[in-house]
Amino acid sequence: MKHNSLVLVFLLMLSSSLCLSQTETSEIKEDFKPSSKNQPGKEYPQVNSQGYARFRVEAPQAQSVNVSLGLGGRGGTDLTKDAEGVWTGTTAGPMDEGFHYYHLTIDGGVFNDPGSMNYYGSTRWESGIEIPAHDQDFYALKNVPHGHVQQILFPSSSTNTSRRAFVYTPPGYNAETSRHYPVLYLQHGWGEDETAWSNQGHANLIMDNLIAEGKVDPFIIVMTYGMTNEVKFGGLRDFKVDAFQTVLIEELIPYVDANYRTISDRDHRAMAGLSMGGMETHSITLNRPEVFSRYALMSGGIYTPEELKEAPKPALIFLSAGSKENPDRVNSAVDALKEAGFNAVSFVSEGTAHEFQTWRRSLYKLAPILFSK
Amino acid sequence: MKHNSLVLVFLLMLSSSLCLSQTETSEIKEDFKPSSKNQPGKEYPQVNSQGYARFRVEAPQAQSVNVSLGLGGRGGTDLTKDAEGVWTGTTAGPMDEGFHYYHLTIDGGVFNDPGSMNYYGSTRWESGIEIPAHDQDFYALKNVPHGHVQQILFPSSSTNTSRRAFVYTPPGYNAETSRHYPVLYLQHGWGEDETAWSNQGHANLIMDNLIAEGKVDPFIIVMTYGMTNEVKFGGLRDFKVDAFQTVLIEELIPYVDANYRTISDRDHRAMAGLSMGGMETHSITLNRPEVFSRYALMSGGIYTPEELKEAPKPALIFLSAGSKENPDRVNSAVDALKEAGFNAVSFVSEGTAHEFQTWRRSLYKLAPILFSK
Repeated sequence: MKHNSLVLVFLLMLSSSLCLSQTETSEIKEDFKPSSKNQPGKEYPQVNSQGYARFRVEAPQAQSVNVSLGLGGRGGTDLTKDAEGVWTGTTAGPMDEGFHYYHLTIDGGVFNDPGSMNYYGSTRWESGIEIPAHDQDFYALKNVPHGHVQQILFPSSSTNTSRRAFVYTPPGYNAETSRHYPVLYLQHGWGEDETAWSNQGHANLIMDNLIAEGKVDPFIIVMTYGMTNEVKFGGLRDFKVDAFQTVLIEELIPYVDANYRTISDRDHRAMAGLSMGGMETHSITLNRPEVFSRYALMSGGIYTPEELKEAPKPALIFLSAGSKENPDRVNSAVDALKEAGFNAVSFVSEGTAHEFQTWRRSLYKLAPILFSK
Repeated sequence: MKHNSLVLVFLLMLSSSLCLSQTETSEIKEDFKPSSKNQPGKEYPQVNSQGYARFRVEAPQAQSVNVSLGLGGRGGTDLTKDAEGVWTGTTAGPMDEGFHYYHLTIDGGVFNDPGSMNYYGSTRWESGIEIPAHDQDFYALKNVPHGHVQQILFPSSSTNTSRRAFVYTPPGYNAETSRHYPVLYLQHGWGEDETAWSNQGHANLIMDNLIAEGKVDPFIIVMTYGMTNEVKFGGLRDFKVDAFQTVLIEELIPYVDANYRTISDRDHRAMAGLSMGGMETHSITLNRPEVFSRYALMSGGIYTPEELKEAPKPALIFLSAGSKENPDRVNSAVDALKEAGFNAVSFVSEGTAHEFQTWRRSLYKLAPILFSK
């Protein structure tokens, strides 16, 4: 039903999630530098100023080495072996700005690039590469006061274990001991986990920089694992939100309100998610509208006025997508919501697809208005 | 000089750090289970009740697949290809209890096992496997109150950047808002980083469990990156402690004292480290004895009474090693220190080498006595 149609949307998005930038380029500039996502001291993979990615893998006796990046998921980039047995290759075109997951296929087996750090996506620890974006300043590590990203292990009787979440507390949280803060519950996408928004999304640095510029009143962000029906990693097809909804509403929120200086009411509690996390946000906010007052779906579907008319009115609805996804859908959804009298905002990330640059920019646009009224 | 001789000791320790358990075993029990360090849903690598490890890697066209584990670093375990092109193999003997780093060599190239999670060691993200230990209960994830492990980014003018550290705050820290705590500065070994003590060492779970059992008065643990002279990863040979000492004493400690409820005096501040982290602890505590009152070296050298007689007297000296390292050295060093009137304690981890099981047990033994008098 609703879920299955959404599932289709997400799977289509995922399948198109590694497309080339449309930039036309005459020749490849030889100004390649190591990717900012490389392991310390590793020279490859590299990226040039046009967004081309170049890979270098040592495997002297290998028969074939392929990189899953570079041709819109339609074959990736085949590396070629030089005289020293080193495999090298460059993407056929510039990549979209921002973060991309990838892996190597070596002699028919899937492995990670030993040069890059690993990032959990597609239900595995993948390699990651960063194409410097023209607007990368907003998530850069700067000499500003930094918040803390805290790993918590909260008791979950419904899943009979202690579950992990990460809690971003803004700069000053530990010093201003009488101040209480609103809370955003922020979900990752399918195949990712609670590490995604910090590691790939730089949510903490986005907040640190916005706060340092005075563009955001500090709030807490809580990120936990959203694929609570962990048994299968088939994932979406069988996805039911109930198990996660119980963990989030009955277990995590009470733990956070008990352990952090939150303003623990509906008006100061928001939920947002990317892709499948948007699907979860959509379902949970409609199931439990008394818990959250501000909803954001990032490449994660839409709300219709009909879905919302029974429930207490949300204070804000934020819908976003990359321009290479289906931006018209979020724009027209927001138009319909506004017409129906809702405070709705849409955002389209120019030149990006179903990838983290879209979601970094979405958080950057969402944060200043999230609790503003 | 002193450093270079220590360097030699460490390199020797490292080279012998993956040795087989001495247990004699007749036949391999077919009760293999996935390693607790596997990626979610991954069936391999597996471990059996005797401590044998079994590996399974898909790479149909590969010519050779070798696992760096299994024969004391002397060749590891060669996998063999079955009819489906899947490479499998079992270690020639049981492994030591606890955590082991490893990697795959595929057709002459070094890669990680796609089945395992990654752990930073040997200056790269390595694969990791866990051989269940008879005493694993003390670092098990239990249904007890859990502390938080917080990523902080602290300003470092000496290195002109914001540096990362992890801060363990004990259960109750956020609730008991008037309580102040002693602090242990705990260092990783050569080629590791500030993630090691939590990810490989389970320092947070060791503390959570000890506190739940009432065996230790809660204290804060701070873990940061100790190879501050990052330029080369040659590492130890050129290691100078000065750059790290400046970061630790002039930058990190003031940040922690300003942002956490510490008892910020010498008597409530300890430093400990494993392997190279012990070398750093040794040098820094002797250079700045007015800063720390409790010193612990885990497989990381010794103190002599002569080194200590000039400085203010430490309240505790803790020296440990695995029984497969050089336990006599720490035992005789502690005897000499006691004779000279120091409060010194030695600990030898039975049946373990220069690996994390030795250091998990060392922290477990150290924590209850660290600030006890």
